[in-house]
Amino acid sequence: MKPLIAITIGDFNGIGPEIALKAISHPSVKKICTPVLVGPLRVFEHVASQLKLKLNLTKTSLPILQRSIVPVIDVGDGIGADVRYGTPSKVSGRTSGVAIEHAVDLCLQGRMSAMVTAPASKEALNLAGYNFPGQTEMIALFSRSQRVLMMLVSEHMRVGLVTVHTGIKNVASQISKEKIVEKISIIDESLKHDFKIKKPRLAVLSLNPHSGERGLIGLEEIETISPAIVACKTTGILADGPFAADAFFGTHAYKKYDAIVAMYHDQGLIPLKMIAFEKGVNFSAGLKIVRTSPDHGTAYDIAGMNKASLSSMLEAIKLAVRISQNRA
Amino acid sequence: MKPLIAITIGDFNGIGPEIALKAISHPSVKKICTPVLVGPLRVFEHVASQLKLKLNLTKTSLPILQRSIVPVIDVGDGIGADVRYGTPSKVSGRTSGVAIEHAVDLCLQGRMSAMVTAPASKEALNLAGYNFPGQTEMIALFSRSQRVLMMLVSEHMRVGLVTVHTGIKNVASQISKEKIVEKISIIDESLKHDFKIKKPRLAVLSLNPHSGERGLIGLEEIETISPAIVACKTTGILADGPFAADAFFGTHAYKKYDAIVAMYHDQGLIPLKMIAFEKGVNFSAGLKIVRTSPDHGTAYDIAGMNKASLSSMLEAIKLAVRISQNRA
Repeated sequence: MKPLIAITIGDFNGIGPEIALKAISHPSVKKICTPVLVGPLRVFEHVASQLKLKLNLTKTSLPILQRSIVPVIDVGDGIGADVRYGTPSKVSGRTSGVAIEHAVDLCLQGRMSAMVTAPASKEALNLAGYNFPGQTEMIALFSRSQRVLMMLVSEHMRVGLVTVHTGIKNVASQISKEKIVEKISIIDESLKHDFKIKKPRLAVLSLNPHSGERGLIGLEEIETISPAIVACKTTGILADGPFAADAFFGTHAYKKYDAIVAMYHDQGLIPLKMIAFEKGVNFSAGLKIVRTSPDHGTAYDIAGMNKASLSSMLEAIKLAVRISQNRA
Repeated sequence: MKPLIAITIGDFNGIGPEIALKAISHPSVKKICTPVLVGPLRVFEHVASQLKLKLNLTKTSLPILQRSIVPVIDVGDGIGADVRYGTPSKVSGRTSGVAIEHAVDLCLQGRMSAMVTAPASKEALNLAGYNFPGQTEMIALFSRSQRVLMMLVSEHMRVGLVTVHTGIKNVASQISKEKIVEKISIIDESLKHDFKIKKPRLAVLSLNPHSGERGLIGLEEIETISPAIVACKTTGILADGPFAADAFFGTHAYKKYDAIVAMYHDQGLIPLKMIAFEKGVNFSAGLKIVRTSPDHGTAYDIAGMNKASLSSMLEAIKLAVRISQNRA
């Protein structure tokens, strides 16, 4: 039995349905799992017809008995006429939120092995009353997970983020020793259980340029990050650092580590995306359920144009399958 | 006549003298310029003997008449016994500062075409009473330049920094529309005059993740960066943005631009160092004189071990020669 993987619609005014529809019928996906679309059937049909994709989209419930169909868990109240490419809207936000809620429930009940979320719009989710910093935090709450960490995964690098969708002016105040210790332990556990690495090695980055230059540029390395690393080491975690981020990546030191702990979004995502080049995957480590997503956004500027790259979505599905099998 | 290039000693407890000594006798350097060491002769002799480098180091003054010697402008009061690899000290800081002051004067007087600074220690400079955020700001002051911008240059990418040696917690408050406009115009002018690019194209990065996500994550893109770009455009500068940094580098959009304007140190230096891999050069744009330096630090951990890579230093010398010729 191939694992069932839920694929949520994302924001239907972006490239969400396009990459979901294309991925679900991709040979490399069908080979390793049974993908199931989650979102309004009528929106999927509308987008499929606009993209001239001939798919046997069929409203279905679990278990899925018919092999010839493309199964759709028909949730959310969007219809074809609601689709307005390029603009976040209340209905696109509500639909992406409802699809996520359903997919989480299916995973919690054990009826799906994992969920992969197409890109949603934070602005549209907010319009619909889903007030979260991002999908990751939503999924953590809906799955009643106490802890979560946004991890970016590629073939050559894994990056875990201490702060995520935080403005630069608030990053420093949102970093504490306790938070870094918590994030490092989530990464360590995930590497062991989700990636089957027996003795994972972690590199922790500095917050400030030149690692704070012994306190001249900033004190967080001395007062917060180093004590967190020491605390982790006493529990047996193999954590090194803090490393000045530019030199760490510039000298390719990252190759010696199973994961890198970055203090803020762009510090981790710039190097990962440069190396992964459209193949990076966002994985929510620490959750009870398995959830991945592509590492890009709604791409409103190319929505409806049949131009979206499928590669990150395909990698996201493959990783979801691999992690659910590693956990099982 | 080949141009005279001053090479300052840097911090002699780091790898400064090692890379200066090795560079000055490198064939690719001697081919394009006459390099002149600036720093205490006795320290250079001490380090050369430890590294088993046989060089005809000779105290000299300008003009340089003898071709067979390695000319040393003997300034600074350090002696061999002062060298303590791996530790910043008052005397190493004073010496690196004095060498910079002399080199700046020689360039201002037109007796040298350019200066290349080996890596100094900010901590050592501070101990000696040079209280500056970095060498760049020192050199701006000593050369009585009103404006300066730290630019990182590699074969494939040029990056200009709006803030430089600033702790992350202070970055947002140190960014203003006026400052961004000033930095963009320095870059634009430098690309035209120093790099001979007729119509340079500039990409301006966002401060916040996802470019602030239309204000949900941060307002600086809307309130500060976009207005600065608009202001630059009205003066004819070809500036685009603000771009979300991770996607900008991840999609290789940087290849379409002659320079990238980064809001803070690691945002620009992580991608540059990944691409340049030890060949990045630091160039102080906007100064009256030409000054470059390697893009790495004192490397105290490998000082005196004969392990330092010469490649960034060689590129720094080549760029200094090229820019001084472009300006002439």
